[in-house]
Amino acid sequence: MKSDIEIAQSTELKPITEIAEKVGLTASDLELYGSYKAKLSFDKIRAVKDQKPGKLILVTAINPTPAGEGKSTVSIGLADALNKLGKKSMLALREPSLGPVMGIKGGAAGGGYAQVLPMEDINLHFTGDMHAITTANNALAALIDNHLQQGNELGIDQRRIIWKRTVDLNDRALRRVVIGLGSPVNGIPREDGFDITVASEIMAVLCLATDLKNLKERLADIVIGYRYDRTPVYVRDLKVEGALALILKDAIKPNLVQTIYGTPALVHGGPFANIAHGCNSVLATETALHLADYTVTEAGFGADLGAEKFLDIKTPNLSAAPDAVVIVATLRALKMHGGLTKDELNKENADAVKAGFANLKRHVENIRKYQLPVVVAINEFASDTKAEITLLEELCDELHVPVAPANVWAEGAAGGLVLAETVLAAIENNPADYQRLYSDDDSLEDKIAKIVTEIYRGDSAVFTSKAQTQLKQFARLGWDKLPVCMAKTQYSFSDDQRLLGAPKGFEITIRELVPKTGAGFIVALTGDVMTMPGLPKHPAALSMDVTDEGNVLGLF
Amino acid sequence: MKSDIEIAQSTELKPITEIAEKVGLTASDLELYGSYKAKLSFDKIRAVKDQKPGKLILVTAINPTPAGEGKSTVSIGLADALNKLGKKSMLALREPSLGPVMGIKGGAAGGGYAQVLPMEDINLHFTGDMHAITTANNALAALIDNHLQQGNELGIDQRRIIWKRTVDLNDRALRRVVIGLGSPVNGIPREDGFDITVASEIMAVLCLATDLKNLKERLADIVIGYRYDRTPVYVRDLKVEGALALILKDAIKPNLVQTIYGTPALVHGGPFANIAHGCNSVLATETALHLADYTVTEAGFGADLGAEKFLDIKTPNLSAAPDAVVIVATLRALKMHGGLTKDELNKENADAVKAGFANLKRHVENIRKYQLPVVVAINEFASDTKAEITLLEELCDELHVPVAPANVWAEGAAGGLVLAETVLAAIENNPADYQRLYSDDDSLEDKIAKIVTEIYRGDSAVFTSKAQTQLKQFARLGWDKLPVCMAKTQYSFSDDQRLLGAPKGFEITIRELVPKTGAGFIVALTGDVMTMPGLPKHPAALSMDVTDEGNVLGLF
Repeated sequence: MKSDIEIAQSTELKPITEIAEKVGLTASDLELYGSYKAKLSFDKIRAVKDQKPGKLILVTAINPTPAGEGKSTVSIGLADALNKLGKKSMLALREPSLGPVMGIKGGAAGGGYAQVLPMEDINLHFTGDMHAITTANNALAALIDNHLQQGNELGIDQRRIIWKRTVDLNDRALRRVVIGLGSPVNGIPREDGFDITVASEIMAVLCLATDLKNLKERLADIVIGYRYDRTPVYVRDLKVEGALALILKDAIKPNLVQTIYGTPALVHGGPFANIAHGCNSVLATETALHLADYTVTEAGFGADLGAEKFLDIKTPNLSAAPDAVVIVATLRALKMHGGLTKDELNKENADAVKAGFANLKRHVENIRKYQLPVVVAINEFASDTKAEITLLEELCDELHVPVAPANVWAEGAAGGLVLAETVLAAIENNPADYQRLYSDDDSLEDKIAKIVTEIYRGDSAVFTSKAQTQLKQFARLGWDKLPVCMAKTQYSFSDDQRLLGAPKGFEITIRELVPKTGAGFIVALTGDVMTMPGLPKHPAALSMDVTDEGNVLGLF
Repeated sequence: MKSDIEIAQSTELKPITEIAEKVGLTASDLELYGSYKAKLSFDKIRAVKDQKPGKLILVTAINPTPAGEGKSTVSIGLADALNKLGKKSMLALREPSLGPVMGIKGGAAGGGYAQVLPMEDINLHFTGDMHAITTANNALAALIDNHLQQGNELGIDQRRIIWKRTVDLNDRALRRVVIGLGSPVNGIPREDGFDITVASEIMAVLCLATDLKNLKERLADIVIGYRYDRTPVYVRDLKVEGALALILKDAIKPNLVQTIYGTPALVHGGPFANIAHGCNSVLATETALHLADYTVTEAGFGADLGAEKFLDIKTPNLSAAPDAVVIVATLRALKMHGGLTKDELNKENADAVKAGFANLKRHVENIRKYQLPVVVAINEFASDTKAEITLLEELCDELHVPVAPANVWAEGAAGGLVLAETVLAAIENNPADYQRLYSDDDSLEDKIAKIVTEIYRGDSAVFTSKAQTQLKQFARLGWDKLPVCMAKTQYSFSDDQRLLGAPKGFEITIRELVPKTGAGFIVALTGDVMTMPGLPKHPAALSMDVTDEGNVLGLF
């Protein structure tokens, strides 16, 4: 069996200008980065807004397990299959972070015969978006510390600076640091920390910005800390939103690449799905929507986190809501939700499928609360038995949810045809009537309560005394009109990652609220949130190499 | 008078493919980054080595003063003038670092009518080389700390790790930090620090590497620290040179851009001129040399640091030595070397010119020790008087060194014609016969002594007891065959930056030696060396902005 990189490297890529033509883009609409990558010009991004929008398909999943569910792979295969059916389709996906690529993942551009290419570039520096975000993030940090050093005119309390530095790497030793040591000319000593770049608020800002003007406004609205009198300090107080926007002026433009089957794909923005909203950029989704008849996009983690944020945070920034939602499930993952361990997955087990189905069922019901048609995609594995597949199909039938196999990893576009037809039928037969879960005018407390009881199905949200104080403070500052971005484990509906399936009778503790006023949401922290991953004992980096001729080895 | 960015933005750029044709490059030799930037392909870089090399012109300067001497501007104007004379010419220059651009400089791509374009891109992310170097540097740091965390199989002494992290920003608060705090899962607590990216050994490695294979070998040869038994730990012990080379696989390819007059320019690599050798990449210089009949390149700071390092460190990695050396001087700077303050420069003062000439004279004599023809370029300012210029010309005549005005800032190519003709004549009449100052077999002590007595003209080099111990240790390790990279103030021949002109009777104290075994040199530290600049009270970043349409403001 060929590895992902072998499949990628044996694919003959078409010039990106040729791919662009498929959706009506000409050479002058593109800023080329080599022959196979391009950014879309601002002129074109503005111009397409007048074109009639197509249909939007959101791909999400059951709660992830170590068995893997293959959301990106199914998204890519679905778009390829739609094109094979003669539908003008595009992808709008996230770009990978180098940290996890060098850590455990080794790559994140789909898999098998459902990949976006050139995967070597997409997995490494791509068009430099991550670097621009890292730089803007750290330029802001340097400007804050320089403000302290040069007299601190704004009266920033150095103990209450919440703006952290970033690197696009897994580097646990930078989680908690002390800076400014050694001498008075080396700044003011204080505690600080580094997040991975994708956890930076600037990543979320870039992904939610609707144009360059809006980007600058959002940057200006970022809270970097508090004064000695506890009033917030915004980027606009430092007057550096212009410099930050300048650093980001190219990063904000969506990147065009292609799948193995030549489907145009906008791969742009990759916010963390816990501390941020976890979807690709609004500009990419919006542009794809106006260029293609069908746009396939995805949301990070399981539907309780990813789809909820897509629908309650991102969608209000789009001109249209999804027309259908695909929930990806695997029999292996359902069996884990049904109580099996990873070692037991290769044996047929109908009871486990039945028990684990409770997880999928709850996600289907949740999406229906948004009044959107749902389709279940079974991402097939060699270990799946015919009986198990039939059982899952029957369970879906009982729920009146259309279900289709997706064998795109092994078969590419052809393996996604049934899924594509099922999705097209769902859109045709069952028009979406998007309803948001809450309104901006709900209090933060009410917004959180709705998510906890209606999506997670917990009994209630419990606020620590710190969070209670913040609820009042944030209301005073007018931040209570913002949506809520939940930071919760992705493995369970609850805040305990060991509770798989469809747990009941739990509370969700809101430990702390974090203002992300530039991104335009309030993060609600439940439990510990990891914003800087570590490397494993044998990082993927150890297998990476490049030959003397420049060929890439060790990405997968 | 137009600002640099106004001149730049009013220039109509030619497609980079058209610029490339001037030196025989076709579209297939280029990897485009937009319409006006490209990287050269490995295939082409390898292929041109068989072409006949042209002439190499090295531009250096007197010791810099706050009056400015305009080395890059003269280099660009000279190449433009050579092309205007019908000579097929190219530039090989360094790429700017974002830190100083956002701090005091505001930009570093020449000035006036002698600029490389698109200056907005060159001054910001360009083709991402700096970001790749930052990433490789910090990936190595993360892998080192991960090695400690995962059991420290190599027995690395965490107190003796010399590999620091980097950001491409001026951020003084990161000079001295403590990392790994907060919890056992956050790594091993230890002291650390951040340098600016251009001070990273990886930048020096990239600039001295002759191909991808050599890059990987140099990366493997980097010393990152010492074991508990004091033996050195190399990157090759960590087995991550492959991953680092992979991160750098595109950054190592030279970048092609154009001047205002359409001269092809390879702008590639920008190592710090104190802790490293301060010249653009070997690959760029070497490639230009084989593509053009005349290649103009520059070396950082004054000739005592920059040209010495170019000739003793970089040149042995090139297939040819410079055919002529241009020393840039300004009357304003000479008057400062002659004892005036910055406020007194606008008044005519022949005595100060005469006194300050001692600085220029010593640099001319020094270059002649390498058996290379020298030309003095007077970078003209509006405040220069005719009498002062005549005086300087007479002083140069006495020294038998050709001298020519360079008015390229105001007049572009036309203002550089006399200089170009003078340089051509010098090459024609006075063939170079390059002699290196020292040989690899000289001891480190002897190498340093030769630089101190023959170039700086000090009485002797004095070694601290730490440096003396290191001399023995480095000889034991075989590192004494490497050239020496002096880290000294650029403002004076001595190690006291207040001693302008041509000081005598001083000693140079070698405080410490630093192994840069990947780059392939030993740094000799004299006094404090700044490897992370700070921001000023009013950073240039405060004036930077981008309009809603994407136009850049505030770079200069």
